[in-house]
Amino acid sequence: MFRKLLSFDEAKQTIAKQFPAEPLGVEETPLLQSDGRILAEDVIADMDIPPFDRSTVDGYAVRAENTFGAEENKPARLIVSGTVSIGKLPRTTVKNGEAAEIVTGAPIPEGADAVVMMEYTTRKTETVTVFSAAGKGENIMKAGADIKKGEKILSQGQLLRSREIGVLAAIGKANTKVNTIPCVAVLSTGPELTEPGKKLYPGKIYDINAYTLTAAIMESGGKPNYLGLCPDNIERLHAALTHALDSSDMVVTSGAVSVGPKDVMPKTLDTLGKPGVILSGIAIKPGKPVTVASISGKPVFSLPGHPASALLTFQLFIHPLIQNMSGRKPQKSAAVKAYASMRMFPAKGRRTFVMVKLKRESPERFVAEPVPTAQSGAITMLAKADGFLEIPEDLQFIDAGELVIVKLF
Amino acid sequence: MFRKLLSFDEAKQTIAKQFPAEPLGVEETPLLQSDGRILAEDVIADMDIPPFDRSTVDGYAVRAENTFGAEENKPARLIVSGTVSIGKLPRTTVKNGEAAEIVTGAPIPEGADAVVMMEYTTRKTETVTVFSAAGKGENIMKAGADIKKGEKILSQGQLLRSREIGVLAAIGKANTKVNTIPCVAVLSTGPELTEPGKKLYPGKIYDINAYTLTAAIMESGGKPNYLGLCPDNIERLHAALTHALDSSDMVVTSGAVSVGPKDVMPKTLDTLGKPGVILSGIAIKPGKPVTVASISGKPVFSLPGHPASALLTFQLFIHPLIQNMSGRKPQKSAAVKAYASMRMFPAKGRRTFVMVKLKRESPERFVAEPVPTAQSGAITMLAKADGFLEIPEDLQFIDAGELVIVKLF
Repeated sequence: MFRKLLSFDEAKQTIAKQFPAEPLGVEETPLLQSDGRILAEDVIADMDIPPFDRSTVDGYAVRAENTFGAEENKPARLIVSGTVSIGKLPRTTVKNGEAAEIVTGAPIPEGADAVVMMEYTTRKTETVTVFSAAGKGENIMKAGADIKKGEKILSQGQLLRSREIGVLAAIGKANTKVNTIPCVAVLSTGPELTEPGKKLYPGKIYDINAYTLTAAIMESGGKPNYLGLCPDNIERLHAALTHALDSSDMVVTSGAVSVGPKDVMPKTLDTLGKPGVILSGIAIKPGKPVTVASISGKPVFSLPGHPASALLTFQLFIHPLIQNMSGRKPQKSAAVKAYASMRMFPAKGRRTFVMVKLKRESPERFVAEPVPTAQSGAITMLAKADGFLEIPEDLQFIDAGELVIVKLF
Repeated sequence: MFRKLLSFDEAKQTIAKQFPAEPLGVEETPLLQSDGRILAEDVIADMDIPPFDRSTVDGYAVRAENTFGAEENKPARLIVSGTVSIGKLPRTTVKNGEAAEIVTGAPIPEGADAVVMMEYTTRKTETVTVFSAAGKGENIMKAGADIKKGEKILSQGQLLRSREIGVLAAIGKANTKVNTIPCVAVLSTGPELTEPGKKLYPGKIYDINAYTLTAAIMESGGKPNYLGLCPDNIERLHAALTHALDSSDMVVTSGAVSVGPKDVMPKTLDTLGKPGVILSGIAIKPGKPVTVASISGKPVFSLPGHPASALLTFQLFIHPLIQNMSGRKPQKSAAVKAYASMRMFPAKGRRTFVMVKLKRESPERFVAEPVPTAQSGAITMLAKADGFLEIPEDLQFIDAGELVIVKLF
């Protein structure tokens, strides 16, 4: 089975064509649990906010015309018709020559069209003296002044944070339609792997990838489905992938499979459903062995075993896909400009990603220094790198001192 | 009971003095659930990584001296002593004149001190021909080359993300000590309030603050404990606060209390425990009525009822406190420079925070335009503002066109 090594751009296009940027689905969630979710509907206000004319101050609800010309030396005297409480329908009205005591937020009583602030009045049991004229509508927030019934207040695709949640609460929406969170199964292959917490036998190492990938899925807005280690046996690999596909919306494996021929993973994937493997091998470094399948519409990624390569290829291919499936708008990853610390070459014919550490030479000047790979090991490399830079496959090299873009982790 | 209105800076100092920047506590969490948590211990590697000398390539483990001088036209011939598998102790050794087939990641067999890459060899049943000399240690990753036993690999206070989790997995740590997440009770007061989803009677409005604050607590790294509406009755306010304190590490209320005298909230807080209210009223706008108490070491905040004021004062005072209690390092909030769209005045003697919308006039030039407050209402204001700017109390005004810092929400 011969498969051409795709270029980085071709691989991106093949994946995008196979898995169009569409949200996976829609579910209803309680408003209290909607923080960080993506709104899956346009929200139209089905009521005015405020629902009624409200006073914006403590004072007296009046007919504005009864206060015309009122000032310090020529106050207006009005008869107090009653008191308007907050949270209730006013039981009093304001007729000509009358005023009703009112608090901030209380409904304006019938007949009143302005509110005089408390500090411009003095009260004597049944009468109130007003020392300042009020214009019509003064200190009143009209029904619908904030949100009008029928108005679109939030749009499909918006990220719900505290402020958007406040808008939904205002119109009394206790449940919201949001995009479902894609569930991503994670499994590691490799007979040398042991789960952290278990005894490590000679020749074995602890599994790292299922842990870094589980965290990376959460950081991308997905729901990880940790399935741990996959036994190194073709039948059980088949069974583990079947279970992963049944229980998740996407599957991510990492590590080589040592049993059988080199292409046992693509071959196994091809038996699981149609169309099967859509690409196997990408002209990138690291990450050349990345294999991608589509099984009954679900993406399956087989990533390399080297922890830094697995996490990098996750960022390149899987992170954007999780964002799409979640209905999230593509985000530009945070990046800084820096100067290359040394000449860096791409691997022949492959888009090359170099993990770098940023050193601040001056407040505005960063230097990007490659983190040594192979020999110094996978783990420290991961933890020490601040981000990565990209060398196009057709570039001869990036020269020392050249300005580069470093995408941050 | 007279309490002086504190300045913004005095209020910040009073709160910082009462609640020192110390993490609340420590708990153990499974590594798979540690993403986003704060590490509460220094982690010292109790093993070498890798735990044994590993091959970094597929090829043949050899004695380097047996390949000295080997080249295309003068290859070295070695006897194949066996095969080293990945994940097991080698069952073969490499004596003088011998070589063992080996795969990437497999342990180096006894006697070998270098690995020749597969592509520089040809195999004939029992012998292998080597066309390239290998230096001592070539293609071998030594035990401890990545992490040395006894080395400090992560420090207390570090945020755990995918890469740090990978480092913990590498040394087999299945559980991690992390700082506990502070639990923050949220309740709203005000007889005009109705919970979203319930029928809205005349004169009532839906509660917004318990929802925005619940979300803001999550966004700050806290665990919200939504307690909903507090009945407007002194005994039940007392009971609700007692329950909130019993079930949480911090309490946040919002809204005025309409029953009893104006200072019913501070008076009630003073009956709940020592020292009680530590400040009541701050010379800021909005947010003047903010009251803070300390009840048996737990912070209680009483915020204003206006949704934008509640959320702003949350950001000013409560967000940093949640960060401290979580063991998180203080973060600078994201900010942009912008030009004031108009002259803006501080409220007399009060630090004034103006909600603004940012308009991009050119790729590098933003204009900060105040979002109209009172009249246009609380909700649209919240949703439309991008951030806020701060006018010092001793400043006469910020002039139109002046450069200002806008802190983003």
